[in-house]
Amino acid sequence: MNNKNEILKHYEVGVFALGGLGEIGKNTYCIEYKNEIIIIDAGVKFPESHLLGIDYVIPDYQYLIENQNKIKGLFITHGHEDHIGGIPFLLKQLKIPKIYAGRLAEGLIKKKLEEHRLTKASEIVIFDDNDIYTFEHMSISFFRTNHSIPDSFGVSVKTPQGMIVHTGDFKFDFTPIGPIADFGKIAKLGERGVLCLLSDSTNSELPEFTMSERKVGESMKDIFRKINNRIIVATFASNIHRIQQIVEASVATNRKIAIFGRSMENTLNVGRGLGYIKCPDDTFITWNQLKYIDEKQVTILCTGSQGEPLAALSRIANGTHRQISIIPGDTVIFSSSPIPGNASSVGRTINRLFRAGADVITHSPLTDTHTSGHAGAEELKLMLQLIKPKFFMPIHGEYRMLKIHTELAVQCGMKSENTHVLDNGQVLALSKNNARVAGNVPSGTVLVDGSGIGDIGNVVIRDRKILSNDGMLVTVINVNLQKKKVLKTPYIVSRGFVYFKDSQELVREIQEVTVNHTHHLLKKHNKMSINQLKNELTDYLATFVYDKVQRKPMIIPVIMNIKQ
Amino acid sequence: MNNKNEILKHYEVGVFALGGLGEIGKNTYCIEYKNEIIIIDAGVKFPESHLLGIDYVIPDYQYLIENQNKIKGLFITHGHEDHIGGIPFLLKQLKIPKIYAGRLAEGLIKKKLEEHRLTKASEIVIFDDNDIYTFEHMSISFFRTNHSIPDSFGVSVKTPQGMIVHTGDFKFDFTPIGPIADFGKIAKLGERGVLCLLSDSTNSELPEFTMSERKVGESMKDIFRKINNRIIVATFASNIHRIQQIVEASVATNRKIAIFGRSMENTLNVGRGLGYIKCPDDTFITWNQLKYIDEKQVTILCTGSQGEPLAALSRIANGTHRQISIIPGDTVIFSSSPIPGNASSVGRTINRLFRAGADVITHSPLTDTHTSGHAGAEELKLMLQLIKPKFFMPIHGEYRMLKIHTELAVQCGMKSENTHVLDNGQVLALSKNNARVAGNVPSGTVLVDGSGIGDIGNVVIRDRKILSNDGMLVTVINVNLQKKKVLKTPYIVSRGFVYFKDSQELVREIQEVTVNHTHHLLKKHNKMSINQLKNELTDYLATFVYDKVQRKPMIIPVIMNIKQ
Repeated sequence: MNNKNEILKHYEVGVFALGGLGEIGKNTYCIEYKNEIIIIDAGVKFPESHLLGIDYVIPDYQYLIENQNKIKGLFITHGHEDHIGGIPFLLKQLKIPKIYAGRLAEGLIKKKLEEHRLTKASEIVIFDDNDIYTFEHMSISFFRTNHSIPDSFGVSVKTPQGMIVHTGDFKFDFTPIGPIADFGKIAKLGERGVLCLLSDSTNSELPEFTMSERKVGESMKDIFRKINNRIIVATFASNIHRIQQIVEASVATNRKIAIFGRSMENTLNVGRGLGYIKCPDDTFITWNQLKYIDEKQVTILCTGSQGEPLAALSRIANGTHRQISIIPGDTVIFSSSPIPGNASSVGRTINRLFRAGADVITHSPLTDTHTSGHAGAEELKLMLQLIKPKFFMPIHGEYRMLKIHTELAVQCGMKSENTHVLDNGQVLALSKNNARVAGNVPSGTVLVDGSGIGDIGNVVIRDRKILSNDGMLVTVINVNLQKKKVLKTPYIVSRGFVYFKDSQELVREIQEVTVNHTHHLLKKHNKMSINQLKNELTDYLATFVYDKVQRKPMIIPVIMNIKQ
Repeated sequence: MNNKNEILKHYEVGVFALGGLGEIGKNTYCIEYKNEIIIIDAGVKFPESHLLGIDYVIPDYQYLIENQNKIKGLFITHGHEDHIGGIPFLLKQLKIPKIYAGRLAEGLIKKKLEEHRLTKASEIVIFDDNDIYTFEHMSISFFRTNHSIPDSFGVSVKTPQGMIVHTGDFKFDFTPIGPIADFGKIAKLGERGVLCLLSDSTNSELPEFTMSERKVGESMKDIFRKINNRIIVATFASNIHRIQQIVEASVATNRKIAIFGRSMENTLNVGRGLGYIKCPDDTFITWNQLKYIDEKQVTILCTGSQGEPLAALSRIANGTHRQISIIPGDTVIFSSSPIPGNASSVGRTINRLFRAGADVITHSPLTDTHTSGHAGAEELKLMLQLIKPKFFMPIHGEYRMLKIHTELAVQCGMKSENTHVLDNGQVLALSKNNARVAGNVPSGTVLVDGSGIGDIGNVVIRDRKILSNDGMLVTVINVNLQKKKVLKTPYIVSRGFVYFKDSQELVREIQEVTVNHTHHLLKKHNKMSINQLKNELTDYLATFVYDKVQRKPMIIPVIMNIKQ
C-alpha cells in the first residue's frame, strides 16, 4: 500500500489491523483511502507465558511510520489497556496529529502520557457522541455502547465507497449503570446502509445474552445484607460502574469504604472527578480510620481479583500488606472471573484467604457477583441484524472466536463469502459492491522489556527458555594455543543448574574432563581456532553433563589465550 | 513419632499425609499404630509453573526411611500418576515389603518399575475387593468406587481403636461403565461404626452430583451420528471407560479407529489385555490403513486433550505430525475439560485446528462430551451419610476444597470440632472417643529434575527465575592484584539479556565501566580480596545496566588473578 507496491486500486478503501486479529490484545485497526489513514485504537498485549521476562507486546508500526503523512488521527473507542496502552510507544515512533477519545479515556491517556513524559507529543481531543470529524475523504462519528468501562463507543467511518462501522468492545445491556447503548443510532446506520461491519468477537463462543451489570449490583446488595462482619471486595479497577454499585451496596448497608491498591485509588479519583462515582461525602475512609469503625460497617475495596502476586488482595491474603490483614470472619467477594491463565493464581489466593480465616464468595451462577463486558452470541446477532452490513469482518478475538463469529453472521442470513476472517496485516479492499483480500502490509509483534522496544527477539527468548529450564554453566579456561597447553584448572561458574555446594564432586569432574578434552583437542588438531575449540568443547561437555544428571544447562566455555 | 520424640500415646492410632493435603498431587497417606505403618498411595505432583525446569515434585520420605522396619505395605487405590507416580522414587530410598494394587494399577505399576529397572525392588500383589490383609494390629480391606479409571478402590483399615476409611478418588455413578461403587459394603461399614473418614475433596466446591459417565457415551453417539467426515477425539489416555464408549460410538456408526499418541497406545494395550476394551477384532486400524478407508468411516483417537505441546493432537493441529494432518471438514471432539492452568494451551490448539479447516466440539453443558471423575458436593454428602464417621479428615485437595468439604460435613450433622483440616506432616491421633492434632512428622517437598532427586532447592529455582526474566551477563576480568592492574579488556558473555549483535555499543560501554570501576576499586582499597571485588563490581554493574536498559540480568564477574 506504499507507492512502490500498491495493493489497493485507487477507488478502494483498505481496512486492516496491525493488532487485534487472532489474539486478545494490541488492538490497532486502520482504515485507508487514497491519501488518508485513520487509526482506531492503539493497544498493548500482555505477553503469553512463553515470552519470558517480557513486559508488553506491541504491533510493529512500520507501515504507519512509512505513511505518516497520510495519518489524520487516532480514534479511541474506550480506555482499556488493550486499546490505549500502545499510545506511548506509538508516539515515540511517529507523529500522530490528534488523538480523539471519550471523556474517561482522555483522562486515562493524559495520565499515561504524563508518566511517559509525552504530553507534548500529540493533542488529545475529547469527543462526544454527537461530534463528527470530517477530513478530505472520510468523516468519523460515534455511537455509545455498553462495556465494562464507562464512555465506550463504536465508530462509524463514512467513506466514498460506503459506511464502515467498528463496534469497539461492546455488549447490549438493557438495564445498564450509566447511559444505554444508542440503539437508535445503530439502527439508523443499518437503515442507511453499511458497507462493512467490524465487530467484537471476544465472547462469540458463548451461546447467551450477557447478564446485565445491574443484576450484579442487586446480587451484591443481597450478599451485603446477609453479612455481619467486614466485607472485602476485589474487582477490576477500571470497572467504574461496578465500583459505583459496590459503593451503593455499602451505603445501603451503612458501610464505609476503604480503598487498597494504587490503580483502584487512581480510578476512584478520576471517576469521582468526572462524576461517575456518586455517594455521600463521608462514604470513603482512610485505612487508619478503620480501627475506629465497627467491623460490620466496613467495606474494603481492593485490587487483586486476578490473583496478581503484588496486588493488594494477594498481599492481604499472604499477611504481607503493611496496613491491613484478614480478621477471622471477614468475607471476601470476588467481583470478577479469572481470565484464562489466571485460574491457578486466583485459586492460590483463595486458599490463603481461607487459611487466614476468611469466607470467600466467588462468581458463579448461584452468586452472580460478576458479568462480562463483551456481547455473547445473541447480542452479536442483534448487532448484525441492526447493522445489516454488506460485508463482515470479525475483530478482537483469537482465531476460533473470529471464525465462530462468522458462523453467527451466516446464521443471520449473510453469505459466507461476504465474511472475512483476516490476520493482522492482511488488507481487506472494499468498494461499493465488492470486498477482496488484497494483500499484506508489514505487521508483526515487537517485544517491550524494560526501556527496550524491539531489541529482544527470538534468540533471546529461546535462551531465556533454556536458562529457565536447566540454568547455565560457564567454564573459563586459560590456554596457550601456541604451546597447546591448558594453563590452570578451569574456573566453573554455574547458576540455576545444581546447588554447587552440594555438588563439589560434579564440579571437580567437569573441571577434569574440561582439561582433558581441551588437551585432547589441542593435540589432535594441528591448528584450531578458539571458536572451533569452543564449539567442540560445548558439545562434549553437554553430553557429559547430560549423561551424569540428565539435564541440559546452557554450556558456555570461555577460552582465554594467554601467552605465558 | 520416632523413638526420640513420641507424639502418639501408646494406644493411639496416627493418621497423617506426606502429600495430598493442601494440594492436588503426590498423595501419600499413612496410618500408624504401635510398630505398624501402612501407606496408602505414593503419588507425584506435576510442578506448578514457578518451579522452572522441574519434572516432578515428590514428598520428603524421611519419616518413612527412619521407620522402615514398621512399614507393612503400600496400598494403592487406583492407577493415576498422583497416586502411583512416586513409587519408583520411594523404592529408590527405602524398602517396601509389598505393594498391594488393583488389577489395572498393578499393570501400570509393573510397567513403571520396568522402565526404572526396579522390578526386583518390591513385590506387587493384586488385590480384589473381597481380600483382607491382616497384620499384627491392623487389617485392611477394600470397596469398589467409581472414578475416571477402572479398578478404583476405597480402603478400610481396621485398627484396635476403630475403623478408618479412606475413599480414594471417587464419585458415585448410578449408571457407570464397568462395575458400580459398592454401596452395600460402604453402608455396612457405616452401620458397624467408623472412627474416622478420609474423603476425596477435589470437587467439594461444585454444588452438584457429577454427571454419569454413561451420559457422555450417549452424547458422543449423538454427535458421531451427525458427522459425515472424519472424527478426531482427544481424551485422557487413562480413562479406559471413556475410550470404551468412543469405541462403541465408532462401531455403532461404522467407523474404524486409528490411535495416535504413545500413552494412548499403551493404555489400549493394557486395557484390551485385561478385557476392559471390548470390540470386534477389526475395529482398530493402523495409520497407514487410513488412506484406504472412506473419511466418514474413520475415528482418530489421540492424546493431547490438554493442549500439551508434544502430544499427538497438538502436532496434528500444528501440521508437524509425521503421519497425519487435518483434512478440512474433520471434526475434532475434546472429550475432556482443561485443567486449571491449561486453558490457554487448549485455546491455542483449538485456534490451530480451526485454521487448518477443522470443526471443533468442546465439552459444555450443551455437548456433554466429558464428565469429572470426582464426586461433587452432593455425592460427598452421600458418602458422609453412608459412612457416618465419628471424626472426619478431608483429603486430596487444596486448602479451600478441604475447608469447604468440612462445611459439607457440618451440613450433614457433624460437629465442626470433629472435622480436621490438616497440613501434610500433621498427625491426627485417634482413639475410640477422641481425635487430636498431636504434632508433626517431617514432611516437605522434594524436587525431581532429570536424574536428580532433591539436589535442587530454592536457590536454584530463584536463579532460574532471574535468568528467565532478564538473562545473564558474565564478565571475565584478568587482573594482577598485587600490581593493582587490569590486564586486558574484559571478555563479556551474555545470554537471554539483549541480542548482542545489535548491542555492540552497550557491550563496549560495559567493558569500559568494568575496567574503570575495577581499577578504581583496586586503587581505593589497600587490600581487597577477589570476593570483595566481585561483590562490589556486581552491584556497580547491576546499577549501570539497570540505568541503561531497565533490566536486571544476573551479573557474574569472573576475576582471574594472573601474575604476569
